[in-house]
Amino acid sequence: MLSRRAFLSMAGAAALVQPVWGRRQNPTIDPVRLRRRLESLSTYGRPGGGTFASGVSRVAYSVADVTARAWMLEEMKSAGVAPRIDAAGNIYARLGGDANRPPILFGSHIDSVPGGGNFDGSLGTLAALEVLHAVQAAGITPRHPLEMVLWAHEESTAFGRGTAGSRIVAGDLKAGDLDQVWNGMRRGDAIRRIGGDPDRIEEAIRPAGSWHSYLELHIEQGGTLDRAQVPIGIVEGIVAIHRFDVVVEGMANHAGTTPMGERQDALVAASTLVLAVREMAAARQGRQVGTVGRIDVEPNSPNVVPGRVSLSVEFRDLSEDTLRELGDALRARAAAIARDTGTTMTIDLATTNPAALADAGVQDAIGSAADRAGLAVRRLPSGAGHDAQMIAVLCPMGMIFVPSAGGVSHSPRELTSWDDCARGANVLLGAVLELDRRDSV
Amino acid sequence: MLSRRAFLSMAGAAALVQPVWGRRQNPTIDPVRLRRRLESLSTYGRPGGGTFASGVSRVAYSVADVTARAWMLEEMKSAGVAPRIDAAGNIYARLGGDANRPPILFGSHIDSVPGGGNFDGSLGTLAALEVLHAVQAAGITPRHPLEMVLWAHEESTAFGRGTAGSRIVAGDLKAGDLDQVWNGMRRGDAIRRIGGDPDRIEEAIRPAGSWHSYLELHIEQGGTLDRAQVPIGIVEGIVAIHRFDVVVEGMANHAGTTPMGERQDALVAASTLVLAVREMAAARQGRQVGTVGRIDVEPNSPNVVPGRVSLSVEFRDLSEDTLRELGDALRARAAAIARDTGTTMTIDLATTNPAALADAGVQDAIGSAADRAGLAVRRLPSGAGHDAQMIAVLCPMGMIFVPSAGGVSHSPRELTSWDDCARGANVLLGAVLELDRRDSV
Repeated sequence: MLSRRAFLSMAGAAALVQPVWGRRQNPTIDPVRLRRRLESLSTYGRPGGGTFASGVSRVAYSVADVTARAWMLEEMKSAGVAPRIDAAGNIYARLGGDANRPPILFGSHIDSVPGGGNFDGSLGTLAALEVLHAVQAAGITPRHPLEMVLWAHEESTAFGRGTAGSRIVAGDLKAGDLDQVWNGMRRGDAIRRIGGDPDRIEEAIRPAGSWHSYLELHIEQGGTLDRAQVPIGIVEGIVAIHRFDVVVEGMANHAGTTPMGERQDALVAASTLVLAVREMAAARQGRQVGTVGRIDVEPNSPNVVPGRVSLSVEFRDLSEDTLRELGDALRARAAAIARDTGTTMTIDLATTNPAALADAGVQDAIGSAADRAGLAVRRLPSGAGHDAQMIAVLCPMGMIFVPSAGGVSHSPRELTSWDDCARGANVLLGAVLELDRRDSV
Repeated sequence: MLSRRAFLSMAGAAALVQPVWGRRQNPTIDPVRLRRRLESLSTYGRPGGGTFASGVSRVAYSVADVTARAWMLEEMKSAGVAPRIDAAGNIYARLGGDANRPPILFGSHIDSVPGGGNFDGSLGTLAALEVLHAVQAAGITPRHPLEMVLWAHEESTAFGRGTAGSRIVAGDLKAGDLDQVWNGMRRGDAIRRIGGDPDRIEEAIRPAGSWHSYLELHIEQGGTLDRAQVPIGIVEGIVAIHRFDVVVEGMANHAGTTPMGERQDALVAASTLVLAVREMAAARQGRQVGTVGRIDVEPNSPNVVPGRVSLSVEFRDLSEDTLRELGDALRARAAAIARDTGTTMTIDLATTNPAALADAGVQDAIGSAADRAGLAVRRLPSGAGHDAQMIAVLCPMGMIFVPSAGGVSHSPRELTSWDDCARGANVLLGAVLELDRRDSV
């Protein structure tokens, strides 16, 4: 292993981090330990023969996930905190503070998508452990209990739906949810595999007000901070999602014998809609996005005029009003396109995820911490979902973003510089200590 | 079975067909027998418990195909002609004429697509048998031998490529062709199954000039004749096909975290190309068609900006020049779209089918026959491929089309009225006799 000096010199982080060190009143995380832990964690689910740059496949409930969680428990114990697993498989650890005050919660997840990267979730989880480590090392006695959390099963690979551990904590659990089967595994049994207890799952549910506030550090996954060369993002909220299923019915016909004027080509109609979705989302003021990510054509043969197309349309924005207006516009455009192309289009609002706004006070605490560290910030929405979205119904929530190089995520090429990792972890620590000074956010 | 009188009355065909009957010099086919044979043939490959309207699945080399061919051999024998099976499995039968003159060939196929109809191929084959039957019944001695043919394996279901029997006759046979495997069956063994002899396959190949001319009656498969209420189509030729494989490479990215302005959305680019193909084919004078029938998106997930799309573009026209111009225009449009969308597009001309023009003299003979029968005609290209296309390299070729109700084909709903079937068969007969008067076409 590199000495601390050699690492800092190599990483070029010395100038940024060293001036803060040693000031008792301003504790900092240990960037070398953070990097070492990220590198160690990356070996759980690493492709055979790969390196850190090969990324990781640590799907929830897999052997990689189970063994990585066991490693996490050991790291937490060696950091002097006592981990506890709830019935849903979430791992908590609490440090100090007045037991009559609600704890300040912070953390993230360590499961990944298949072929994912080493920063999504892992950074926020290990930074949370750094916070506990640094507070202890600095000999600080917090006013509130400080609690880190490792959420179980955040990515939507397993059982087709993500933020599963935090979802249970927030009380979003329906009869039959634990009987879902994925990869030959019942969800209840999967939860047992990671140390949870499906028979007592209700014990994982927490009432509103259980925490003073919740903070999550995460990579941005988009390219806004990287392009702007801004090290810290203050998340304004996690966008709402309206997802539509669209079915276009035309008439399948022989591609040779059907003149152009006689066609009811479902793909021509669908293509017009794809371009309309892009134009609707791009033309409007604001940061809303619109995507057609899935399209299935029948019969999908080179020599047959497509008879039927099904596709998905997704709009995301912080404002539900904007999403409603985009949905109305989608229906109007679809009706016009159907008329013009001799097809029919049915549009169903298939799923909606409500927006989760970040609390203004928590945003302010993040801003203060960044300011004290001399780091520029940018406010931005989170286009991706996070556990913070679930916990927002239980307490004031805020998120810190750090840059994703090139905006790449869910890929082995996912990259956040070690400097940016350290900066983000320090802002997390600073924001926790700032929130600790406040009785209410 | 219905009496002839009852059938004609029911079919409303009496007025059209009866005045021609009985004139020795103008023999006609027997519409009752033609219908009966079409109905009998329809039982080979009919869905269990179905009716004539349920269509037929008589894929080449299937049990349905093998048994239907055996039935055909018996029908041919009972019509007083001696069938012969060549090494490729094509069935021929020859009648009269001067053995020093080249025969006039006519026929079609009886194999179908899965879930096909009862007219595609079957009508032309049974009409060919009617021609031999009618010529014998009328006591006519033709100058040229009259030869009917039932081509083996016309549809492209089996082994992924059609017009297989006629293709071998035309000499288009490559080493290894008979070793292809489809549905667990080697193609050579499949040919043996229908009475062919793969070990002597070269004997099926015929030199140019083997026939005086070739005629094929077929349903149109498009809606031109049906809409125009014209009973007889004179085919000007079978269109050429240029098929392109297009690959669009963009950048797969998170649908939530990637702002509209930062996307390289492969599906947006592909959709623009789909509309360009339609516009290029529709805007131009002429009867060319352009189709995007297949499109495959990666990763094809609602929440991921599509990173890669592959699709097929097909242009068809009688004129190779038109196809070349359309191909050039496609490349130019694709380059412009790629530039505008930040994607790359590669375009490969994957397959070309040359056009097969119908001989002017054969077209003229069909026109004369229709004229004598008092039937209106329309000249039109065939957008679909046919065995006639293969045989066009061996002798002058022509095709007669009859209306497809609603332009539907390759479907159980495929329908040509019994009247139109009889009209087409009579024009085939008339055209054969007209050609028989000519030493050269």
